[in-house]
Amino acid sequence: MAENTIQAYAAMQAGEKLVPYQFDAGSLLAHQVEIKVEYCGLCHSDLSVINNDWGNAVFPAVGGHEIIGTITQLGSEAKGLKIGQRVGLGWTSESCQFCDPCVSGQQVLCTGEKTPTIIGHAGGFADKVRAGWQWVIPFPDDLDPSSAGPLLCGGITVFDPLLKHQIQAVHHVAVIGIGGLGHMAIKLLKAWGCEITAFTSNLDKTDELKAMGADHVINSRDNAEIKAQYGKFDLILSTVNVTLNWKAFLNTLAPNGTIHMLGMVLEPMQIPAGALIGGAKSVTGSPTGSPFALRQLLQFAARKNIAPQIELYPMSKINDAIERLESGKARYRIVLQADF
Amino acid sequence: MAENTIQAYAAMQAGEKLVPYQFDAGSLLAHQVEIKVEYCGLCHSDLSVINNDWGNAVFPAVGGHEIIGTITQLGSEAKGLKIGQRVGLGWTSESCQFCDPCVSGQQVLCTGEKTPTIIGHAGGFADKVRAGWQWVIPFPDDLDPSSAGPLLCGGITVFDPLLKHQIQAVHHVAVIGIGGLGHMAIKLLKAWGCEITAFTSNLDKTDELKAMGADHVINSRDNAEIKAQYGKFDLILSTVNVTLNWKAFLNTLAPNGTIHMLGMVLEPMQIPAGALIGGAKSVTGSPTGSPFALRQLLQFAARKNIAPQIELYPMSKINDAIERLESGKARYRIVLQADF
Repeated sequence: MAENTIQAYAAMQAGEKLVPYQFDAGSLLAHQVEIKVEYCGLCHSDLSVINNDWGNAVFPAVGGHEIIGTITQLGSEAKGLKIGQRVGLGWTSESCQFCDPCVSGQQVLCTGEKTPTIIGHAGGFADKVRAGWQWVIPFPDDLDPSSAGPLLCGGITVFDPLLKHQIQAVHHVAVIGIGGLGHMAIKLLKAWGCEITAFTSNLDKTDELKAMGADHVINSRDNAEIKAQYGKFDLILSTVNVTLNWKAFLNTLAPNGTIHMLGMVLEPMQIPAGALIGGAKSVTGSPTGSPFALRQLLQFAARKNIAPQIELYPMSKINDAIERLESGKARYRIVLQADF
Repeated sequence: MAENTIQAYAAMQAGEKLVPYQFDAGSLLAHQVEIKVEYCGLCHSDLSVINNDWGNAVFPAVGGHEIIGTITQLGSEAKGLKIGQRVGLGWTSESCQFCDPCVSGQQVLCTGEKTPTIIGHAGGFADKVRAGWQWVIPFPDDLDPSSAGPLLCGGITVFDPLLKHQIQAVHHVAVIGIGGLGHMAIKLLKAWGCEITAFTSNLDKTDELKAMGADHVINSRDNAEIKAQYGKFDLILSTVNVTLNWKAFLNTLAPNGTIHMLGMVLEPMQIPAGALIGGAKSVTGSPTGSPFALRQLLQFAARKNIAPQIELYPMSKINDAIERLESGKARYRIVLQADF
């Protein structure tokens, strides 16, 4: 097969099942890197693009943005990487490198031309994927490649706020919603040394979450339980995409505490200014993370032996994997192993 | 007159005009300081208490919480203060000194017993006022006592967020609402070295605001003008207590930018999570400030020659002063001079 031909699984139209799809990617650009995909996580955002929930998908759509693989082609401008090296690639594939956020190392907030890996770009449900070299993250030798993919999107999304909010081991952090993101948050916070409270609507997970490191597991739908957490948390990471009683959760914050939004809740949050003013509280949010944070995360995960808990599917069974994800039963993240 | 008799102006019932009111304050407690009032600012919060807008006023209500005066009595536990010394007293008169915020120097966030100067306590519309010694702030020699009172509440309210958000001279800060708080924010930000944008509904103030230090003055009711500020501000200080198009203002924030709420808007803010996530933005709030911040503010104002722009009334004309404040015409803060 020609060097620049990529084999993938694509949704040809919004909401359709994925089908094999082959395309000519053309010559690699000077700033790009081509990666042979070994493993690729399956994230809810992939489904949002496949189903065009956000209205900005481009079809045929090739999802997959939690990619682990090895470098097969290297553009002439790429720095510090070599052919055959194992690397990771997450939500973002390219950023402008020139805007203020880019030049200050906050490339994830790029205000110029930015390319998500799976919107108007072919992602990791494929044998190969391409990206700007700046977003290709060296993979530590002592990290398991088969389970690490989800760190590149879900993991960085919950890791970056710990950096941003200067979370330390003395802090008490709560996580709302214990799925793909939430379970990685618990594992990371455990290694971070924090006191951890998990809010979940499924208490069947309690023992498992405690084994991961949660100190407390609370029913996220029990208003009395929420109320009982009054004044407790320095940070709440909200990974859900449904409307909650935000005022009730603001009341569970300690003075100076923060609710940090990661789930794209479509209905505007109802935030009483008084609930922010009295205790100097905050409501914040962030997308995934920048290359330096991604490097820090992979190195931290390797050093602390942190692995997402995954279910492994061959990529050829991708439609089965999507069905499993949609069932809500996956614990806690699905990874696809390329088998082209 | 007996040493512990205080002469004041009080609202005997919610919403009534103030009348002379004399009461016996009893013996000074060991941790307290008594201050002979020289000047006292008139703040919208005084009206909120007099009118019982918040439902927690105690009548007879003696307002006044932007107090400059000299110490007349000193409890045995008071530290570092002396009889005759000029001091300031703001929104808070007592805090528990034992809760986590208190012992970490964030006394304004006290979660124990806290006494606002004018709720269940007699404030500065009086010849004398009492407070816990920890909240009695030494007054710099080279600061004008006749105009400095408003720094103790309105001033600290806009000053504290500059500390909290680590604002530096490179930042671009906007202020929404240029009244008592807003005009002090402009003066402080000018001395802070920031680029300053003032949002006001009254463009008649433009020349005056530019003279104070505003680089840009924008009509806060002109949606096109607001939209044109896209991606610009590191911090917005909102001093108004009415609902604005918060989403539009979130769009004017630079990546990592913050809207900081100071005005007690009663209707919940409508905050789309997506507007926080994409640019890693924040909505925060804070009340006034703690004793160390109050000391820093008075010292900074003295060093930078920052004085609130005031209209001076004799305290005996307090009802006229209130009428003037309610007219919205005061530029920019009213101070009462004690004339008992």
